[in-house]
Amino acid sequence: MEYNISDKLKVMKPSAIREIFKSLTDPRIIAFAAGNPAAESFPAKEFALLAQEILEKDATKALQYGITEGYPQLRKQLEDRLAERFGCQKEGNTLLVVSGGQQGIELACKVMCNEGDVVLCEDPSFIGALNAFRSNGARLVGVPLAEDGIDTDALEKAVIENPNAKLLYLIPTFHNPAGITTSLGKRKKIYEIAKKHSLVILEDNPYGELRFAGEEVPTIKSMDTDGIVIYCGSFSKVLSAGMRVGFVSAPDAIAQKMVVAKQVEDVHTNQFFQMLCAAFMERYDMDAHIAKIREIYKRKSGIMLKALDEYMPKCVTYTRPEGGLFLWCTLPEEIELSAFVKRALERFVAVVPGTAFSPDEAAVSHSFRLTYATPTDEQIVEGVKILSEIVSEMTQAK
Amino acid sequence: MEYNISDKLKVMKPSAIREIFKSLTDPRIIAFAAGNPAAESFPAKEFALLAQEILEKDATKALQYGITEGYPQLRKQLEDRLAERFGCQKEGNTLLVVSGGQQGIELACKVMCNEGDVVLCEDPSFIGALNAFRSNGARLVGVPLAEDGIDTDALEKAVIENPNAKLLYLIPTFHNPAGITTSLGKRKKIYEIAKKHSLVILEDNPYGELRFAGEEVPTIKSMDTDGIVIYCGSFSKVLSAGMRVGFVSAPDAIAQKMVVAKQVEDVHTNQFFQMLCAAFMERYDMDAHIAKIREIYKRKSGIMLKALDEYMPKCVTYTRPEGGLFLWCTLPEEIELSAFVKRALERFVAVVPGTAFSPDEAAVSHSFRLTYATPTDEQIVEGVKILSEIVSEMTQAK
Repeated sequence: MEYNISDKLKVMKPSAIREIFKSLTDPRIIAFAAGNPAAESFPAKEFALLAQEILEKDATKALQYGITEGYPQLRKQLEDRLAERFGCQKEGNTLLVVSGGQQGIELACKVMCNEGDVVLCEDPSFIGALNAFRSNGARLVGVPLAEDGIDTDALEKAVIENPNAKLLYLIPTFHNPAGITTSLGKRKKIYEIAKKHSLVILEDNPYGELRFAGEEVPTIKSMDTDGIVIYCGSFSKVLSAGMRVGFVSAPDAIAQKMVVAKQVEDVHTNQFFQMLCAAFMERYDMDAHIAKIREIYKRKSGIMLKALDEYMPKCVTYTRPEGGLFLWCTLPEEIELSAFVKRALERFVAVVPGTAFSPDEAAVSHSFRLTYATPTDEQIVEGVKILSEIVSEMTQAK
Repeated sequence: MEYNISDKLKVMKPSAIREIFKSLTDPRIIAFAAGNPAAESFPAKEFALLAQEILEKDATKALQYGITEGYPQLRKQLEDRLAERFGCQKEGNTLLVVSGGQQGIELACKVMCNEGDVVLCEDPSFIGALNAFRSNGARLVGVPLAEDGIDTDALEKAVIENPNAKLLYLIPTFHNPAGITTSLGKRKKIYEIAKKHSLVILEDNPYGELRFAGEEVPTIKSMDTDGIVIYCGSFSKVLSAGMRVGFVSAPDAIAQKMVVAKQVEDVHTNQFFQMLCAAFMERYDMDAHIAKIREIYKRKSGIMLKALDEYMPKCVTYTRPEGGLFLWCTLPEEIELSAFVKRALERFVAVVPGTAFSPDEAAVSHSFRLTYATPTDEQIVEGVKILSEIVSEMTQAK
């Protein structure tokens, strides 16, 4: 039978990254591609202890339906932590627990955008978010990203040119895929532009806890005295990605509609892991746990940068992240990206081509994303050596 | 700030049931309203054992990202079980794990319907599904429900009158809220109508395992030789509602698009509980476990029906379910429904007014839904007595 698939889904393809992820079962693969956090970052022992306690003492609550907004104790803890750590304001905002930061992004778009409305975003940007916007029938307009954040002149121009722009999606801290952090000056400028044009900002901050160098930069949400910022966070990179628990802090009126939209998507986020997160935050030292994860990524990013500095031909440029999971490499124009990615995969090194992160699916890219989170220390060096060799081959061949 | 909420969400209100649920923290309340399964139906001890094992032996897999389609072992087990128990065909269909049956319903609509397209459904129908359709901008057209299922003449008329109908949503077995089961004859007739008009059926079967009287009736999916049925099931009523694990069996081409849509909603269903369900099905006797749950609801529904037979004035009619969680009561026209529901709540008995289940939000209803799953045996009798007294008062007052 010929099915009448909806217009918004008809044009969509599965996420390149998730598809690459599925093919990574080959143990020979060096996984520079996936965005998986390091397995050693999960507090497995603590979780085993707490899980036992919850299922022995509080099983009915853990296994029964909960309320859509989230487990009350966890909401309170997150509100407090977001206020302390990230300056997120409580007044006029509602904190919701969602099924991963991904759901927060998707709900924000569903609530704010009609089909055909524009979402402005950095170019490049996180593919999961771009696809969430596409799945809601939104049109993407990318704004170039510089080393200190989005090009604010180009942003203002895009806002003016797109009066039906309803959201500005940003990953200001340890950007995925670019690995850069938006400067404080630019954050202020971005906030002023959004305020002037009544544009709602969607600030995605899944990596904010993972700084291993440089100075903290305030979140855009911390400047939000006008109620124009929806803030998304996640436990995926600090406790567990597989449990699917994230959170949103949004102006009350927007949060109310996000609750309605969430209710029909999955009723509520799984109750057991909300209780587990609450218990973990109460019983263990969250900051000490995060400090350990920062050390892991500091070491691993250091190994990757050292290998790149040592082996990679100088025609390739790359970002030097101060936190997060990713760095972004740009090839010389003479190297064709898809051929490079294919050759890397033939030699068992998986990277994500920059085209996957482009708001404009027809765009040409010479960049690719690397993560140091998933591979072992040895694999990082080995993988960078292989990529460096391929670059040498492909430039000498010309 | 005035926010530009999207047209589809602007008009939506939170689900009446979820809102009632939030107010049920008062321990004096007799909860005939919520759709919560009986707490004693959860295999808490077995879950505690399996949880420990998974978090000790397989923590990385349980806490890391998984694939969108679901945990492979669980998908295989579910495919086999659906084939054996419900005659669901494997050939040409893909089984997906989703975050509760609710997500399956929502994804089906997102994939099949553009904004403004029609979803045909039984009147009354499950509020969570109706709101999922509304949140995707679909227009609902209700078709009256008789004691043996939807009125098939009215259905065919509605199909012809609505050429942009893309989905027919049905709960053929132990209907929520009506408690009735669609006869085999009607199932065949419905399938023929859908086939003739190239209409896709969304068969929602969360209660199908919970038969405690009468004979099994084949699912509509078991008749699906043409690839026109999307089948949704759930663990919520047999293992745990709070863990948010359900499943979908859909024709391959539709399932592929549901994967894309799910990917942007929550990446994947929480990995730990997928592994837990797989381990439970492998290590314990699922049928024996379900037989125990059937006994619980057989006893509880019996208590409720006996109390209704004994105390309720004859002017009130009610369905006699052969399974599931609900029965559906209809008041005489002289009693105003909202006044009745209010008086019941004042006397600490919570029921859901029939208006909540109407595809047409402006419709008048004289019915309400009762569940016997949540309250204790004593509360069931006490609650029915109170409702009976209120009926007497409200009819005598005339």
